[in-house]
Amino acid sequence: MSRYTIGLDYGTLSGRAVLADAADGRVLATAVYEYPHAVMDRTLPSGATLPADWALQHPADYEQALLHIIPQVLAESGVRAEDVIGVGVDFTASTAMPVNAEGTPLCLLPQYENRPHAYVKLWKHHAAQRYANEMTRIARQRGEGWLDVYGGKVSSEWSLPKLWQVLDEDPEIYHAMDEWMEAGDYLVYLLTGRRSHSGSIAGYKAFYNKGNNAYPPQDYFAALDERLRTVMQDKFKTPVSPLGACAGGVSETMARRLGLIADTPVAVAHIDAHVGAAAVGITRPGQMLAILGTSTCHLCLGEKERAVPGICGAVADGILPGSYGYEAGQSCVGDGFAWFTHQMVPEKYYNEAKSRGMHIQQYLTSLAQNLRPGESGLMMLDWWNGNRSILTDYDLQGLMLGMTLQTRPEEIYRAMIEATAFGTRMIVDNFRAHGVAVEDFFATGGISRKNAMAMQIYADVLHMPVRVADTDQGPALGSAIFAAAAAGSARGAYDTVAQAAAHMASARYTVYQPDASSAEIYDQLYAEYARLHDYFGRGENDVMKRLKRIREGALKQH
Amino acid sequence: MSRYTIGLDYGTLSGRAVLADAADGRVLATAVYEYPHAVMDRTLPSGATLPADWALQHPADYEQALLHIIPQVLAESGVRAEDVIGVGVDFTASTAMPVNAEGTPLCLLPQYENRPHAYVKLWKHHAAQRYANEMTRIARQRGEGWLDVYGGKVSSEWSLPKLWQVLDEDPEIYHAMDEWMEAGDYLVYLLTGRRSHSGSIAGYKAFYNKGNNAYPPQDYFAALDERLRTVMQDKFKTPVSPLGACAGGVSETMARRLGLIADTPVAVAHIDAHVGAAAVGITRPGQMLAILGTSTCHLCLGEKERAVPGICGAVADGILPGSYGYEAGQSCVGDGFAWFTHQMVPEKYYNEAKSRGMHIQQYLTSLAQNLRPGESGLMMLDWWNGNRSILTDYDLQGLMLGMTLQTRPEEIYRAMIEATAFGTRMIVDNFRAHGVAVEDFFATGGISRKNAMAMQIYADVLHMPVRVADTDQGPALGSAIFAAAAAGSARGAYDTVAQAAAHMASARYTVYQPDASSAEIYDQLYAEYARLHDYFGRGENDVMKRLKRIREGALKQH
Repeated sequence: MSRYTIGLDYGTLSGRAVLADAADGRVLATAVYEYPHAVMDRTLPSGATLPADWALQHPADYEQALLHIIPQVLAESGVRAEDVIGVGVDFTASTAMPVNAEGTPLCLLPQYENRPHAYVKLWKHHAAQRYANEMTRIARQRGEGWLDVYGGKVSSEWSLPKLWQVLDEDPEIYHAMDEWMEAGDYLVYLLTGRRSHSGSIAGYKAFYNKGNNAYPPQDYFAALDERLRTVMQDKFKTPVSPLGACAGGVSETMARRLGLIADTPVAVAHIDAHVGAAAVGITRPGQMLAILGTSTCHLCLGEKERAVPGICGAVADGILPGSYGYEAGQSCVGDGFAWFTHQMVPEKYYNEAKSRGMHIQQYLTSLAQNLRPGESGLMMLDWWNGNRSILTDYDLQGLMLGMTLQTRPEEIYRAMIEATAFGTRMIVDNFRAHGVAVEDFFATGGISRKNAMAMQIYADVLHMPVRVADTDQGPALGSAIFAAAAAGSARGAYDTVAQAAAHMASARYTVYQPDASSAEIYDQLYAEYARLHDYFGRGENDVMKRLKRIREGALKQH
Repeated sequence: MSRYTIGLDYGTLSGRAVLADAADGRVLATAVYEYPHAVMDRTLPSGATLPADWALQHPADYEQALLHIIPQVLAESGVRAEDVIGVGVDFTASTAMPVNAEGTPLCLLPQYENRPHAYVKLWKHHAAQRYANEMTRIARQRGEGWLDVYGGKVSSEWSLPKLWQVLDEDPEIYHAMDEWMEAGDYLVYLLTGRRSHSGSIAGYKAFYNKGNNAYPPQDYFAALDERLRTVMQDKFKTPVSPLGACAGGVSETMARRLGLIADTPVAVAHIDAHVGAAAVGITRPGQMLAILGTSTCHLCLGEKERAVPGICGAVADGILPGSYGYEAGQSCVGDGFAWFTHQMVPEKYYNEAKSRGMHIQQYLTSLAQNLRPGESGLMMLDWWNGNRSILTDYDLQGLMLGMTLQTRPEEIYRAMIEATAFGTRMIVDNFRAHGVAVEDFFATGGISRKNAMAMQIYADVLHMPVRVADTDQGPALGSAIFAAAAAGSARGAYDTVAQAAAHMASARYTVYQPDASSAEIYDQLYAEYARLHDYFGRGENDVMKRLKRIREGALKQH
């Protein structure tokens, strides 16, 4: 008798579900729902204007997605609800919101619907940068030991700078909230009606340390702001649950609305970027996975805890139970390619793509793949969305140089892809320099499957084969694997994530081998990238920060 | 009885004629003809591919233009041929070609039509950069005194590096040529059937010194390449004529073809950028004129000969008889704006512009003018076409930084305009630092008339009022003024250029006054520009040159 699990994968712009066979991971159906409010970075639904660097979401979109995608995969697959033995969840993080005692997001209450701080702050909400800077400064000053584990810098993409911003800019919202809830935990709460708190999200995004089951000390928070002294007890009150555990069963109400059986096990939420490691079958230290989407997340398993500057964090059991999970990342990958195609590509390219029946990025790729490494003469720093690793600085911006009157859009497109490859190499070199081995390189995410040219460039730049798992469902399949571990052997599934992955993970890969002559040219270009990276990123010329301050002054005069 | 002159203005993409009243400069008719071959930078007419940085023209286009525009202004104005008392000529420079003993350009002979070096090398043909570098190096080594007068560097946009490239890369063409003729002199030759050699072009573009009626010494040329020892006697054999003089009369053949009277005086050719000074009424030291077109030329009159590093040259009587004519320039202004609109502006902007009945640059301007200084957060180096002044280095390329995912096309468009204004301020500051006063700032050329936002930015960046002459015919009217001086008082015109300008030049201006608060922000941005300018332009980080070398290597592998 067959058993199935549903993996839910909530990204930046849409929620996705897959229904997978628990025996072998075969995906029977998938469904996607795009969030109606997408990313709110200019206005609230009411029309109220948002300042620069804000990025909010609407939690009603998450529930809408659920109501669409689960019934759809059930209907499409024809699988009976009683044969679905688990639901797994992954989400972007730290994407968090204030909820009241009933678990209702404050922005859904009429009295708060015009308050920006009542909404979900998306991972890429960078308006809390100054709170992150202050957290770093004071942690250094106090010699906080946990800081090194998180690369030596607090990121504005994490949970606490965002929460501090709420307290500082809208204390009423801060005091009205019962908890500061991660969207992944909120999705589990929608499904089960019970609160849970993902250990992986807490570990990577809120400095939770599994070894001593603790957050940073109260004195640290008090040193930031006396009002934050008891922030962790006050706003993070739900205890942490380990990855692979069951967070509860689907509630009766929700089971009825979704067409599932009540009490179907729901796994503790995972981070969208991390859950994919299980899906591609990464199990050993030294294996790195790059998940290439709007941004890129680099995961690497390690045997020991090492302090690596500029990474996002090293968390025990944070990616897979049984090893240290290292994370680093790049803030602007697919986002940058999309920015370029929406803002910069001329009409004639769209017309030509249309006449060939190609997507604009396919058409640009078809032109760019005829260019040899170095032929464009262009060089970029891929910081359109700041730098997540290894500078961890969202006050940085993009740079492009080498343009001539002959420069064409496809050359810029290729240079953008190359810049993201150089950024990845920075991250790999940095891990190696600090004692974390990177021996095998895997890629997943939309770009890895859609753009063979990009993957060849990555292989050439990294001097390593790039393995792309033959599945389009990386994170969603990963969530289906965690769902199978949450269901357990008693329900015909597995007792550990490792066992579930061994059966369900993708086993076939497309492998891109580095080309020696391209790699040699890319070594020269990478040296230029590294020099510009340090010049603009490490304080030699802080022009980007000064321009940002001038910009903020100019915006205030509007 | 009225007297008229025709001014011919040959630019990068078209030839233009105006027919002006010699009494007051009033323009009765204008005509434009776009060169069918435009700029050949990728292929010859035969389809043969050109290497990077080449920019050729076809001399047949010049004659075609003549045959269209002169009959057209005669017909449109209704002026009788016998009332046209002079023709003046200005041309881009150094735009030069090899001609045989009959004065025929070698590329028009069947045996040479597939030889790139037989064609006209346009001013912006930058493929002779290494010959220019070598000319600078050896002139410095030998302590050649003339070098300082030309800003301390030989430019690849000048005559002799281009000619040396011909000798070195295709000696057969070199030996087959009777003269290396400037296009301006060629146009006079087409009109008169007689050879002449413009003193202004020879002075600015071939190191001719009026004081001692000489070129640099033979030993210098021999030190470059023994084969060049007698280059000036061999390939520049026609004697130099002063500005404002008559080069000869229209030939009978050409008079018949054009509808003019034979023997109508034709003025010695002038440089397109320089002739405009007469048209806007610049007559005093301390007055600077910026001619804003595909590139910008800065002219400034001075009382003494001063060595100003990085300028294009200081030539006695080079702009107007009676003063030293200083020239500096920027290689990429309108060219850069056009590159941006052709290569980078997305479909939706074109659609929106179309629906409003606006040209794309008008539409971008309408959006960009709502931005405050500094608001885009962007900064550029305007080197898409190298740097003409004050670095005089065509191995440099464009730079853009400060991009975020929110950056929009109009912000980039404005940043490009601002970068050209910062480049102009560099030039003004450099003149002042070396003893050449710049007290009044005039602008002419298409951009000065079409884009009020750009002129306001220039005023704010320069902290000076910008005066734009109320005429669309700057250079062409200037040529008509020089034609009036060539005709002389005997034919009812004037005996000097100054007299002709006093009557015919434009007398009305639109004046842009600097705004103090914008100027203050631009001071901050200019400091950033200057720092990046020196970092990338003065050897601290030669990344652009290294990228260019890598690029050349990559192109060779195709």
